[in-house]
Amino acid sequence: METYLRVPMDELKTFGINCLMRARVPADEAEIISDNLVMADARGVYSHGMMRLGIYIDRVRKGGTAAKTRIEVVRSDGGTALIDGGNGSGHVISVRAMEMAIDKAGLHGIGAVGVRGSNHNGAEAYFAMQALQHDMIGFCVTVGGVNIMAPWGGRSPLLGNNPFAIAIPAGEELPIVLDMACSVAARGWIVLARKNNESIPPGWALNKEGEPTTDPTEAYEGTVLPVGGYKGFGLALIGAVLGGVLTGAAVGSEVTDFYEDLVKEQNVGHFFAALKVEHFLPIDQFKANMDNLIRELKSVELAKGFDRIYMPGEREFLNLEESRTLGVKVSLGVARELAALGRELGVAPPAAIG
Amino acid sequence: METYLRVPMDELKTFGINCLMRARVPADEAEIISDNLVMADARGVYSHGMMRLGIYIDRVRKGGTAAKTRIEVVRSDGGTALIDGGNGSGHVISVRAMEMAIDKAGLHGIGAVGVRGSNHNGAEAYFAMQALQHDMIGFCVTVGGVNIMAPWGGRSPLLGNNPFAIAIPAGEELPIVLDMACSVAARGWIVLARKNNESIPPGWALNKEGEPTTDPTEAYEGTVLPVGGYKGFGLALIGAVLGGVLTGAAVGSEVTDFYEDLVKEQNVGHFFAALKVEHFLPIDQFKANMDNLIRELKSVELAKGFDRIYMPGEREFLNLEESRTLGVKVSLGVARELAALGRELGVAPPAAIG
Repeated sequence: METYLRVPMDELKTFGINCLMRARVPADEAEIISDNLVMADARGVYSHGMMRLGIYIDRVRKGGTAAKTRIEVVRSDGGTALIDGGNGSGHVISVRAMEMAIDKAGLHGIGAVGVRGSNHNGAEAYFAMQALQHDMIGFCVTVGGVNIMAPWGGRSPLLGNNPFAIAIPAGEELPIVLDMACSVAARGWIVLARKNNESIPPGWALNKEGEPTTDPTEAYEGTVLPVGGYKGFGLALIGAVLGGVLTGAAVGSEVTDFYEDLVKEQNVGHFFAALKVEHFLPIDQFKANMDNLIRELKSVELAKGFDRIYMPGEREFLNLEESRTLGVKVSLGVARELAALGRELGVAPPAAIG
Repeated sequence: METYLRVPMDELKTFGINCLMRARVPADEAEIISDNLVMADARGVYSHGMMRLGIYIDRVRKGGTAAKTRIEVVRSDGGTALIDGGNGSGHVISVRAMEMAIDKAGLHGIGAVGVRGSNHNGAEAYFAMQALQHDMIGFCVTVGGVNIMAPWGGRSPLLGNNPFAIAIPAGEELPIVLDMACSVAARGWIVLARKNNESIPPGWALNKEGEPTTDPTEAYEGTVLPVGGYKGFGLALIGAVLGGVLTGAAVGSEVTDFYEDLVKEQNVGHFFAALKVEHFLPIDQFKANMDNLIRELKSVELAKGFDRIYMPGEREFLNLEESRTLGVKVSLGVARELAALGRELGVAPPAAIG
């Protein structure tokens, strides 16, 4: 029995846009948000896809997120800027902040933009990948929208999983796109497992007594584990500093829960950077050398239990190709939620869901 | 029975300088190299300390590393630069490259310097920490001096562990200094275990048949495991791109073995960046908020089996304080090697070793 439906990408995106617009999100912003969510699903990153459409809309309707985004440039000086997102949509603010970082890198070779006053911005890869079409290396990190990770050695969550992404252009090969949470697994997967009534693998989380658990509800109430112990804790802390302390956004106990408190302004922070390859090497030489390295890495003798080697982001590009041809996979649980959301807002869902 | 000696920091450093100068390294460069090695030991990072003095000197004497460092600025434009280290000492080149990144960040808010034509540069924290006295955030990453890590899913090493470091200023609290290899453990620890005839913990490495091993010699001949599986592989690949592909340094099969080939130029690459905090927030506000976050994180309820929470780099600062008071710990194995090196070069070792 199939546990998912296939929905054409454009239909899913149009549905998202229409739902967001019913919540008074302007059309251009609804387009960015829905594109970000559908791309996450299309790339197989279901934890950050349309399963979150409902909560974004809830937050807008309850006042936790402003329906219309008004960005204020707090300062912009040389290769850097700090902007305040005015509590608008995290996706919209992030796309525009990354554009600023890219513009600055065009002028100075490198650019960095810090953001405060933002909201949950979905999957980070989307923003880092904006750099690719400019032959730049893109980087972004966000303060997670809820504290889910204890510092290493502790048991009370006081950090987000603070995911970051890096995108690197290649030539004939696919770009490298690393998008990773600092926890062993993104908490979105725990949310999805809870929604689909599945257990989670051991090693992902501790319950609130500090013991290992495979129950997604217990994990949700406990703490996720940092990847590599103190290393993942260190990475999450760096994310909190770049995205939060440096920008004046919420960190530590200032962070409110994206899921539990839909009313209060979250003051989410992000950090974006772009690096212009041509400031170092001619772009053709760089791309040819990237291709060489990727081909070498993909051709090494395999470890037991593996049948091929994937570069970071490669699975997601392959998923995207499949989604473009066959439609995006939408789990039955998420499909039911989207159908209900459509009924509530008076928006017709894609035929496959309806 | 003590397995180590205590040696006063200044005596150990003077010994290092004198040994290096016997190999015709200029005094100012010998000072930088020896300071870097002694600081690593003093901070408890023994894998990158004086145990490596012998091989650095061997490489200089056999022509693998130039005795005198001559840096060429290939290009310098806005916030970025690319330099060629002329096959000089990695420590010296790195200190100077980080100074350039800091100067650029002073002008543009952010600066990045790529390096090729360098050599093994020791512990990365040393360079990232140069940013601290300028109230900047420092970052550096290096292409490892030997391929020890297979891509995730493979068994043939084609990447270094490509360690990176990030240093962040604080106010009254200690700075945050994350210095991590992309492998579960730095290979220097495997070298040290082999030298001291100890086994290594499970989970660090596979043998060349791709099976888990706790034998440091088998591990040395096999592959180390990336931290967090594909995440650590992704991080190591990013390091290879920033330090290697972007700079024109050796990556993949171009990388020669630091330990096995003492004659051939290695063309090691690094990447350094600095970010000026004042371009975002007033420094006092930033430092006060760093202190708040650090204090919050250190005060959470403890997990079972832990008696305190350490921030990244905190143990190393505490070790440094102890080393300044009691002397640097030098293992008996390393002490014997240093004594032999001193005899060979006609340099009197510190009294505790001699």
